[in-house]
Amino acid sequence: MSVTTPQGFRAAGVEAGLKTSGGKDVALVVNDGPTHDSATVFTANRCKANPVLWSQEVVKDGTVRAVVLNSGGANCYTGPDGFQTTHAVAEQVADHLGIGAIDVVVCSTGLIGLANDRAQLLAGVDAAYAALGPDGGQDAAEAIMTTDSVSKQVVVEGAGWTIGGMAKGAGMLAPQLATMLVVLTTDAVVPAADLDTALRAATRVSFDRLDSDGCMSTNDTVTVMASGASGITPSLDDFTEALTQACTDLAMQLLKDAEGADHEIAITTINAATEDEAVEVGRSVARSNLFKAAVFGNDPNWGRVLASIGTTSARFDPADLDVAMNGVWVCRQSTPHADPTEVDLTGREVSVTIDLKSGTERATVWTNDLTHGYVHENSAYSS
Amino acid sequence: MSVTTPQGFRAAGVEAGLKTSGGKDVALVVNDGPTHDSATVFTANRCKANPVLWSQEVVKDGTVRAVVLNSGGANCYTGPDGFQTTHAVAEQVADHLGIGAIDVVVCSTGLIGLANDRAQLLAGVDAAYAALGPDGGQDAAEAIMTTDSVSKQVVVEGAGWTIGGMAKGAGMLAPQLATMLVVLTTDAVVPAADLDTALRAATRVSFDRLDSDGCMSTNDTVTVMASGASGITPSLDDFTEALTQACTDLAMQLLKDAEGADHEIAITTINAATEDEAVEVGRSVARSNLFKAAVFGNDPNWGRVLASIGTTSARFDPADLDVAMNGVWVCRQSTPHADPTEVDLTGREVSVTIDLKSGTERATVWTNDLTHGYVHENSAYSS
Repeated sequence: MSVTTPQGFRAAGVEAGLKTSGGKDVALVVNDGPTHDSATVFTANRCKANPVLWSQEVVKDGTVRAVVLNSGGANCYTGPDGFQTTHAVAEQVADHLGIGAIDVVVCSTGLIGLANDRAQLLAGVDAAYAALGPDGGQDAAEAIMTTDSVSKQVVVEGAGWTIGGMAKGAGMLAPQLATMLVVLTTDAVVPAADLDTALRAATRVSFDRLDSDGCMSTNDTVTVMASGASGITPSLDDFTEALTQACTDLAMQLLKDAEGADHEIAITTINAATEDEAVEVGRSVARSNLFKAAVFGNDPNWGRVLASIGTTSARFDPADLDVAMNGVWVCRQSTPHADPTEVDLTGREVSVTIDLKSGTERATVWTNDLTHGYVHENSAYSS
Repeated sequence: MSVTTPQGFRAAGVEAGLKTSGGKDVALVVNDGPTHDSATVFTANRCKANPVLWSQEVVKDGTVRAVVLNSGGANCYTGPDGFQTTHAVAEQVADHLGIGAIDVVVCSTGLIGLANDRAQLLAGVDAAYAALGPDGGQDAAEAIMTTDSVSKQVVVEGAGWTIGGMAKGAGMLAPQLATMLVVLTTDAVVPAADLDTALRAATRVSFDRLDSDGCMSTNDTVTVMASGASGITPSLDDFTEALTQACTDLAMQLLKDAEGADHEIAITTINAATEDEAVEVGRSVARSNLFKAAVFGNDPNWGRVLASIGTTSARFDPADLDVAMNGVWVCRQSTPHADPTEVDLTGREVSVTIDLKSGTERATVWTNDLTHGYVHENSAYSS
């Protein structure tokens, strides 16, 4: 049930003293091959953290042999010295494994604007290397947690091959990735170019459609490594489907653990002219603080849904929009329809359906409600 | 100190029973001339309320003789019947004044998706007409309040002419206008085309740069009427300057009364390549829930400022950004500089300065912090 479930991978998670709260904080995932194909997507934020600047170079040739991750410090906005720390970490991992540093992806998460203690981090790398094992997935998943309340892992079985994965992230979940680190592993034989195609297809409909608070992080990284240890080459369609399933599963785990949230909200836009327009409409609602606060108050406030739709450039007739909440069509033709008191929002899961009546495309965007817990955690936690 | 301070205007504010909380809820502002030039800007939201749909037609010829406003119901998403209510209100005002309904702007604010009682509203119009007087400005300003805790008014004196104004709005303050109704009056002689030029210039740097919670309302209307009663024709520059001063003053009153806010935050972007890019950068920070929650917690979290800047398309070097909070340069060259503990955020007014080092343009965007009060008011108030 982890990144070490597929054959050909070892992992570890150890305590290096980086987290002021204590606990494991350095993770290492190693691909022992025989193949070392990989693909990675990064945050779209232009202000990127040092590990992202480093790893962007690492992944260019499609070969990644190890991913080293730390919590307790994002190494972001720490200048050239911070970049040297990232480089030193990659070198240390490479020295232990007898590989080149340029095949080592580095990920960091935690406070930004604070430099990690380099010696402490390197000692953590030594300890993680020493602890590497075929059952280390769980420890690795725990070592990347920050404000996460639970570790997030997934396994998807193919025909003779497997995908494993782990993720962290509980806030700043936003489009084009989130404060989110994800490592996926597979023992299928998948060339780097196909991995890239599959990963982009999978993230487009999973992590990219998670918009917890509209904020975009600086460190987000999703890496998939293929060891080829199963000896089986799945079709690209089959592999993409399985990878999408793994990414969606992890994305839902992130959504459910979003900071301070009381509700998970799925906003599905149907009958849109294009899928992009469906996403734009869903995202506009997912970013409405007024709507999200209403859901927190168990108030099926469809007026705030329409007001958000009206800010988009999607095609629709403003006088002919239908909106359902938890299956009750509270708005038809942009006017009140079913009695909103029929909508029960006391459960955690909330669905919003928006009928644009402009085409045949659809998309779902996921978000959380805006709660006192969110305000509390993000005013008290300096990250 | 109101819309009736300039010569040539009468106003009234009366209680028609529309507000469940009680209090004045119908306002009328009449321009007795001799001129009836006007200009109006509306919400950019494509899902517009019925009064906006009506008033868009009214203002096309540059002539407005009266503005009738009600709180206690926004007449939004109420369908053709709601439009007929708006039309009936304009007709009733026109009948009393012996003018055409097509010269009567109608504004509504309050709950959306709920139809106002037409008979009640029309009775309110009768009462407002009966109460019209040259000192009715204060009553009118009170009658348009919803969650506002205070009425908002302004007077700006020119050389022999005057501008008066009133506004309502305490939430959903966002670009391209807000949940905001504004009526401005002047006794200067200003042709409609010049009023339009001046009003667009004034709103562009005032109401349009207020972004309290990123949400855009459905009813926003800003109307200026010129009676010409002073007989004085100011230069367009002088008039635009005075109108900008009036709009900025009202915008700051709206900002200070934003729902549940503990801080007013002025985000000034300097040395931008263009003014538009400076606005884009300021707006991105104003919309960061994470940054706004940090300010609520008195935490000078400049990392969240940089993360927001990174989501924009403005020109800058991600490794060379400077950020000051309340005058303390906590970040230079995208790395930590002054000790953040030097920043005192306990006062209500917070300034953020962002140096993009890409040009010579600048702009200020205003917002509020994200507080428990905001979440409470917007989860409990069904609007």
